[in-house]
Amino acid sequence: MVFGETFSIQTQGFSDIKDVTDTVQHTVVKSKIKNGLAHIFVVGSTASISTIEHEPALAEDMKDQLEKLIPTTLRSRHSQTWGDDNGFSHIRATLMGPGLTVPVVDGSIVLGTWQQIVVIDHDNRPRLRKIFVQVLGE
Amino acid sequence: MVFGETFSIQTQGFSDIKDVTDTVQHTVVKSKIKNGLAHIFVVGSTASISTIEHEPALAEDMKDQLEKLIPTTLRSRHSQTWGDDNGFSHIRATLMGPGLTVPVVDGSIVLGTWQQIVVIDHDNRPRLRKIFVQVLGE
Amino acid sequence: MVFGETFSIQTQGFSDIKDVTDTVQHTVVKSKIKNGLAHIFVVGSTASISTIEHEPALAEDMKDQLEKLIPTTLRSRHSQTWGDDNGFSHIRATLMGPGLTVPVVDGSIVLGTWQQIVVIDHDNRPRLRKIFVQVLGE
Repeated sequence: MVFGETFSIQTQGFSDIKDVTDTVQHTVVKSKIKNGLAHIFVVGSTASISTIEHEPALAEDMKDQLEKLIPTTLRSRHSQTWGDDNGFSHIRATLMGPGLTVPVVDGSIVLGTWQQIVVIDHDNRPRLRKIFVQVLGE
Repeated sequence: MVFGETFSIQTQGFSDIKDVTDTVQHTVVKSKIKNGLAHIFVVGSTASISTIEHEPALAEDMKDQLEKLIPTTLRSRHSQTWGDDNGFSHIRATLMGPGLTVPVVDGSIVLGTWQQIVVIDHDNRPRLRKIFVQVLGE
Repeated sequence: MVFGETFSIQTQGFSDIKDVTDTVQHTVVKSKIKNGLAHIFVVGSTASISTIEHEPALAEDMKDQLEKLIPTTLRSRHSQTWGDDNGFSHIRATLMGPGLTVPVVDGSIVLGTWQQIVVIDHDNRPRLRKIFVQVLGE
C-alpha cells in the first residue's frame, strides 16, 4: 500500500526550523498503514529535512553553527551569476539533504521522546514550503 | 511485505563509530524479503547512521574532523539551558541525520567491499542505543 | 512491486558533481510503478547522493565549500596507514551519506524545477561509479 499527501508550511528562511512531526503522524494515521516507512521530502533546492530535539535554545545553536560552517555572507559564484544572493542556502541544503525516512510501527512513526521531524529552510527570504509525505507498507 | 526488528548496541559517545552491517544483514535474511529496501534508524536526537570504510585509522580521522567542525567544547544555549553539556552532540546528529536506506537485492544488502553501515553516537556519555531496522519488499 | 536497476557513470573525483535525474526518471518509467519511492544509492565509501540546483557556478561553490570544511590537503591517519591519500574523500562521503530517497507520484519523481539528483564523487581520481536505483510502490 502507498499513501501520499502534500502540505505547505510558512517558513522565515535563514535556516528557520519548523516542527512537522504532528502533520507527518496525521498522514500516517490517514494512510491506515500499520507497518512500513514514512518518507518526508521538501520540494526545492534550499531546504532540508532532519530530526532535532525541537526546543528554542537548540534551534538557535543550530543556526549559529550553520552560520559558522557556511556563512550567509558567503561570496558565491551562484549569487554573482544569478543575483539572488542565496548561494549559502543551496550549499547548506545539499550538505544536509532534502529528505528523511522514518519507520512506521503499529500505525505510528518511531521517534525518540526528544526527537522531532523538522523542516529547515535555508533560503534568504520567507517561503511557503511544499512538503511531500509518502507512506509505504501494509 | 514488511519486516521490522529492533536491536541495541553499547556505544561510548563522542562520535564513537560502531559497525552494524552484520546485524542489518541478519535482519534482512530473517525477513525473507529478496528485493526491496532496508532502512536503519537510530532512536534519539544525538546519534547518526551512515556508511564508512570501517577501519580504526579512518574512525579516528572522522572524530577529528567532527571535532574541528563542531567542537565538543562548543558553548551552546542548549547546554546552558538544560545543563546536559551535549549541545555539540545534537548539532552533529541533525547535520548527519538519524537514518540510512540501503537496497536489498537477492536477499542481501548492496554495499561496496569497503563500505560498512555504522552508528555514530555523538552523545557525551556511554549509551545503550536502540536501532530500528525496517525491511520492505517482496 | 519492486524494480531495481544499476547504471554506471564516469566521474572525475574531488567532489565532481554529475546530474543523474534523467537516468533515475527513466528507471521509474521502466518500473511501471505509479506511486511509491525511488531510492538512489552509490556503491562505495567515497561518494554521495544529494540534490542541488545543477548549474556550473553552484557546482564550483559546492566544491569550494567542501574544500573549506574538509580540505583535500587533510593529513589523515587513513591516508598514512593505507597510502591512498583519500582520507578527505571518506570524511566528506560519510558526512553527506551514500543515498537519497525521492517520492514517485503518477509515474514521475517529485522534484523542484531547479532541483536535480546528483552523484558527488569525492574520491581523488576519476572513477566509473556504480549507482543502484530501487523503485518500490504500486
